[in-house]
Amino acid sequence: MIEMKNITNKNNSVCIVETQSFTFAGPGNELELECGDTLGPITLAYETYGTLNADKSNAILALHALSGDAHAAGVHRDQDDPGWWDDMIGPGKAFDTNRYFVICSNVIGGCKGSTGPSSINPATGKPYALEFPFITVADMVHAQRKLIDFFGIDRLLCVAGGSMGGMQVLQWVASYPERVRSAIPVATALKHSPQQIAFNEVVRQSIMADPAWREGNYYEYGQPEKGLSVARMIGHITFMSDQSMEEKFSRRLRSGRFSFNFDPDFEVEGYLHYRGANFVKRFDANSYLYITKAIDYFDLSDSKLIPAGRNIDTRFLVISFKSDWLYPSCQSQEIVRALKMNCVDATYCELQSTYGHDAFLVEVEEQTTLIRHFLDKTFNGYLVVDGYGV
Amino acid sequence: MIEMKNITNKNNSVCIVETQSFTFAGPGNELELECGDTLGPITLAYETYGTLNADKSNAILALHALSGDAHAAGVHRDQDDPGWWDDMIGPGKAFDTNRYFVICSNVIGGCKGSTGPSSINPATGKPYALEFPFITVADMVHAQRKLIDFFGIDRLLCVAGGSMGGMQVLQWVASYPERVRSAIPVATALKHSPQQIAFNEVVRQSIMADPAWREGNYYEYGQPEKGLSVARMIGHITFMSDQSMEEKFSRRLRSGRFSFNFDPDFEVEGYLHYRGANFVKRFDANSYLYITKAIDYFDLSDSKLIPAGRNIDTRFLVISFKSDWLYPSCQSQEIVRALKMNCVDATYCELQSTYGHDAFLVEVEEQTTLIRHFLDKTFNGYLVVDGYGV
Repeated sequence: MIEMKNITNKNNSVCIVETQSFTFAGPGNELELECGDTLGPITLAYETYGTLNADKSNAILALHALSGDAHAAGVHRDQDDPGWWDDMIGPGKAFDTNRYFVICSNVIGGCKGSTGPSSINPATGKPYALEFPFITVADMVHAQRKLIDFFGIDRLLCVAGGSMGGMQVLQWVASYPERVRSAIPVATALKHSPQQIAFNEVVRQSIMADPAWREGNYYEYGQPEKGLSVARMIGHITFMSDQSMEEKFSRRLRSGRFSFNFDPDFEVEGYLHYRGANFVKRFDANSYLYITKAIDYFDLSDSKLIPAGRNIDTRFLVISFKSDWLYPSCQSQEIVRALKMNCVDATYCELQSTYGHDAFLVEVEEQTTLIRHFLDKTFNGYLVVDGYGV
Repeated sequence: MIEMKNITNKNNSVCIVETQSFTFAGPGNELELECGDTLGPITLAYETYGTLNADKSNAILALHALSGDAHAAGVHRDQDDPGWWDDMIGPGKAFDTNRYFVICSNVIGGCKGSTGPSSINPATGKPYALEFPFITVADMVHAQRKLIDFFGIDRLLCVAGGSMGGMQVLQWVASYPERVRSAIPVATALKHSPQQIAFNEVVRQSIMADPAWREGNYYEYGQPEKGLSVARMIGHITFMSDQSMEEKFSRRLRSGRFSFNFDPDFEVEGYLHYRGANFVKRFDANSYLYITKAIDYFDLSDSKLIPAGRNIDTRFLVISFKSDWLYPSCQSQEIVRALKMNCVDATYCELQSTYGHDAFLVEVEEQTTLIRHFLDKTFNGYLVVDGYGV
């Protein structure tokens, strides 16, 4: 049932991978969403790396951020782009595929193979567009649970992810604590602050202000390119730190002198334009709207992460980055506080980095040390407890 | 020649004021701009508060920020809105109009009475739109100098302003140090960092992405409302601090529950929408483009503030605010460093405030104490030095 796609190579990559699809449909397999609607059939795009062991005790679920997808590691046959966490997932890497079986699935609401607003609505034969129901982070997790059931995995060794991926990590523990042996929320929060909501709202308004958005019904005409591009430019400012922008661009001019017109003069402007233009080619505008809203709605504060009186034995490694001003360390510290106040085994580490929020994707070395050790202890602890020895 | 408009009232306001106009034109009165173009005739809108003394030694020039105007204090006869620094300018206030004569003029490139892209181009009889030449902060200051000449003021007691107003303060000292007895740059910088440029570029792109912008030629059709509104929403996020947003809005919902649609759910979203919609009514989109570009081009770092070997006796009071992340304190500290390394008399104060960049407009009490004392010393020092006694 489960195809193993990984072929290791000299560069410690999982090498050529292929995205798979899992569809659940029919009675009892539709998803009751938090908004009250029902969604189905639902397809999840996913990839796996490494080999699931006989007792299915070595499975790790990697959870992607806002614009991520199922392609977390390796490369596809027709493309050179490595997966979004390729530096972290592979033989000998933080999530060591010689030892663990790593699953990554695209969230519902997304546009990379999982059911989302750009998918065909079976009721109309046309893309859902704004007929797509509102989804939440909990809905994303409930759909993933079906995939984990499909693999026959009772208990995940670990759920891990950064940014919105970290929110899904927290939601997994809130919804299914008995199915999660350990959790690694990175650069994330129990809930969005008003400033974070404000940035997301401006992003949405930028998309919806573009007449090419056509109230969401643009699929036969093409993306609302200008609005989506500006939206992504805003995002990229928040992903980087002031310092990393200074190191990367400073005030360098693209042509050596001021243009005295409204073309981009500075390299940093050119970078944002490049990022904006690229994003339009790869990400659906409506998915951006739905997913940012899911993020803004997310809220596991005030005992919603661990309801009073519930004992959970999930172990936590919480990671934040000093220069991350989009998901500042104080928000990770709130997670740790919520855990510790409920006697949950939690380790917290704020890593020094100048990369801002992007750090969870690029700060490999220290994250690898922390995560490898943490997984090792979790996995060995499991073996010892269950009488297998190490 | 100079009309005094102030009538004091019980509330320590300068009361009813009227915006004046000053136009310079004709040979020798056009402005050679930094971009190489010539601009003229030029009109400056200005207001004055208080009385210019006989030897014209009590004049203070207040300099406005990006979207400010000449209306710094009091109210207009037909409107209730007090000027943008009304809390700071008036009888007994920081800039005490019982003692000093305060002038505020709208910058060139603006849209509140001074010559800018929405003004009629005398060559065509139509609004300049993008035919308006590129202006810089230095050009703004050169134009203001003509106004100060018109008043017959040899030496300003003080130039003061926050944000872009602070840049004009620095430019006054760089361009005309002999005409500035003291300077108060507030919440500003010697130059924009790449992050600050990035925010401005996204603001510009948001405006220019709106088809209603029509390459700048929208004057007969109306403003590019959607793009300009999104642009201003971005601005307002950067003007506030995370903490002040938390205090003002937290995650409060406008209707008590999630809408599960793309209307604003949270109060913070409603606030941004309100600010964006209001801005469209009061500010010209092209002016926003020109002025943000002028700010990005501004650069008085690397001895450009005070060229090596130049002795200046301008006294400085540099003020920043702890929660201001748009113009963080480290940028004010760079100003102080540049001054001190050139043996300039400079006092620096970082004020505790949770208001972010908005603090320079709303943190009245401490600024008043600092500024009143600083002006007092400057003015009295002048009197003593020049043999008038106190």
